[in-house]
Amino acid sequence: MAAHAGVSRQTVSNALNAPQRLTAPTLARVRAAIDELGYVPDEAARALTSRRTRLIGIHIGPTAHSHASTPEPLLAEFVRAAARHGFRLVVLGSFGDDAGQIAAFDDVWRRRAVDGVILTDTHTDDARPAWLRERGVPFAAFGRPWGAPDSPHPWIDVDGHGGAWLAVDHLASSGHSRIAFLGWGHDEAGGDDRERGWLEAMTTRGLDARPHAHASGDTVVAGAERAAELLERWRPTAVVCASDTLAAGVVRAADRRGIAVGSDLAVTGYDDSPLARLTHPELTSLTQPFAAVADFLVDHVVMASGIEVPDPPPRTRVAEPTLVVRGSTGGVRAGALSF
Amino acid sequence: MAAHAGVSRQTVSNALNAPQRLTAPTLARVRAAIDELGYVPDEAARALTSRRTRLIGIHIGPTAHSHASTPEPLLAEFVRAAARHGFRLVVLGSFGDDAGQIAAFDDVWRRRAVDGVILTDTHTDDARPAWLRERGVPFAAFGRPWGAPDSPHPWIDVDGHGGAWLAVDHLASSGHSRIAFLGWGHDEAGGDDRERGWLEAMTTRGLDARPHAHASGDTVVAGAERAAELLERWRPTAVVCASDTLAAGVVRAADRRGIAVGSDLAVTGYDDSPLARLTHPELTSLTQPFAAVADFLVDHVVMASGIEVPDPPPRTRVAEPTLVVRGSTGGVRAGALSF
Repeated sequence: MAAHAGVSRQTVSNALNAPQRLTAPTLARVRAAIDELGYVPDEAARALTSRRTRLIGIHIGPTAHSHASTPEPLLAEFVRAAARHGFRLVVLGSFGDDAGQIAAFDDVWRRRAVDGVILTDTHTDDARPAWLRERGVPFAAFGRPWGAPDSPHPWIDVDGHGGAWLAVDHLASSGHSRIAFLGWGHDEAGGDDRERGWLEAMTTRGLDARPHAHASGDTVVAGAERAAELLERWRPTAVVCASDTLAAGVVRAADRRGIAVGSDLAVTGYDDSPLARLTHPELTSLTQPFAAVADFLVDHVVMASGIEVPDPPPRTRVAEPTLVVRGSTGGVRAGALSF
Repeated sequence: MAAHAGVSRQTVSNALNAPQRLTAPTLARVRAAIDELGYVPDEAARALTSRRTRLIGIHIGPTAHSHASTPEPLLAEFVRAAARHGFRLVVLGSFGDDAGQIAAFDDVWRRRAVDGVILTDTHTDDARPAWLRERGVPFAAFGRPWGAPDSPHPWIDVDGHGGAWLAVDHLASSGHSRIAFLGWGHDEAGGDDRERGWLEAMTTRGLDARPHAHASGDTVVAGAERAAELLERWRPTAVVCASDTLAAGVVRAADRRGIAVGSDLAVTGYDDSPLARLTHPELTSLTQPFAAVADFLVDHVVMASGIEVPDPPPRTRVAEPTLVVRGSTGGVRAGALSF
């Protein structure tokens, strides 16, 4: 390869890994030789010379802390976003707790088996960011640093507050005023954020913000149990839920009481998970902008590993979800409403 | 490291990658030095000397060919199984079609970015096995080579035929005789296998094996549509379904007609997906032995990459699913029945 281009091996390496070190004519000559020979660098050799693996580590769900997982569509977006920079994704295992994840980070980092990691499912008292910072592991987080707002690492979150506000907007503009909220309690920061959005949207409109309840967990059964009490006590015409799972519980509770979801009762979910299309009627829900989330997180890890990216993202970002209207809110409007 | 043990770097490399080349005392001395220093080999250096990346590539769902995906629990088992040999899992992207997967295989193989790949979602006219064989890429498949039974590559499948038989057994022993089948048509080999199991189990018992239908796709809506016709025409007391998705469709169709699933109508799903616990009542279903599947596939890729594994698996294996009894069949028996 180097002989073919009439240059040294270091020059070929530079052309691949540090093109800015070469003059334009040399770079052009090496690149022409690369094209002509169909040369593909060996990743191990490249990793050893560049000190980069071009691998990013990530955990998959389910998590010990919340309903959150790493949904398949998000994982697919990570793969796509990483490929923009010639990076790939390594699965480090199931979430488990912070200690288990840290053990996995420790293993791959000591072996230099990845260039950095992506955190998902941030939570209060999250032990991972400080550990990663101390070791100098490049990372970025999906989810704000709950309880540690000054944490200096890059993160992106989706505006749970704004999403709930969007759901209330949609319902109020369809004529609802008795709009209840069903969440999953106060232990989960993301759920709280969604509840605050509902509360403020209701209060701002002068609507009664008392009708709310917390399920004992983010499950359909727990949601159905609390929904039965919520419907009995407050007789709402609409329920904003902190998750699709809880919304499915509301649908189940309504079905049992002969209340027709979509006409007698409007229900909104959150996250636009596969479950949102499995209830009858299907759930109006809030879609997270996974492509933007993946681009942001991958760009930060790539940058932190010492590679420049075009249009570097800001250090932190709150992205807006999109309301997808389906049958559970009467299907009065087709398509998606932007925030 | 090498100096500390008083040996050459090649000897350290041998101790890590080819211990059989060293005498016992030398190996012991190097290992003691490794322990003492807490030495962890750099993956890139190790990959270059061993010509192994210790990475296995895999695609994630959804697929172009069927309802099958790479479920999160299976992905987690792959990670666990790979870790037994010091291997890790690289996500190559979403399934897409064969051509897209082959392009991804081509890219990682030319770069020597993985040591092999795992195929899932095998199907008739599957272009992937022949391509991988021609290139000499180590691989193993989850799913038998439908339409190409003599294909020489290693594969493991779960006995769809036996699983459906198991469902019929369970229903017949609970007193059912009008047991219908709902599948998703004849294009999908795995679905056919499940249908044949139902057919033979019914015929063997002398039961009427006419009541069956095929949904237009493996979706809840398509399942509910066909289930409505099936219930109307045959008035079965039980329906064996080729997937949890279709079973959820039967539950929906029954709900609409005021038929109580669990008491008036028994329904069985297949795959024991998360959906099985989201219907009301929850679905009796068939669990796939993901741990055994992951061990088998990873062992074969590791072996094909030139590393010995303890207890090498046979070239092909059909593993048995397990029936998990839940409310949709009356919950008459708690726990799981083994085949």
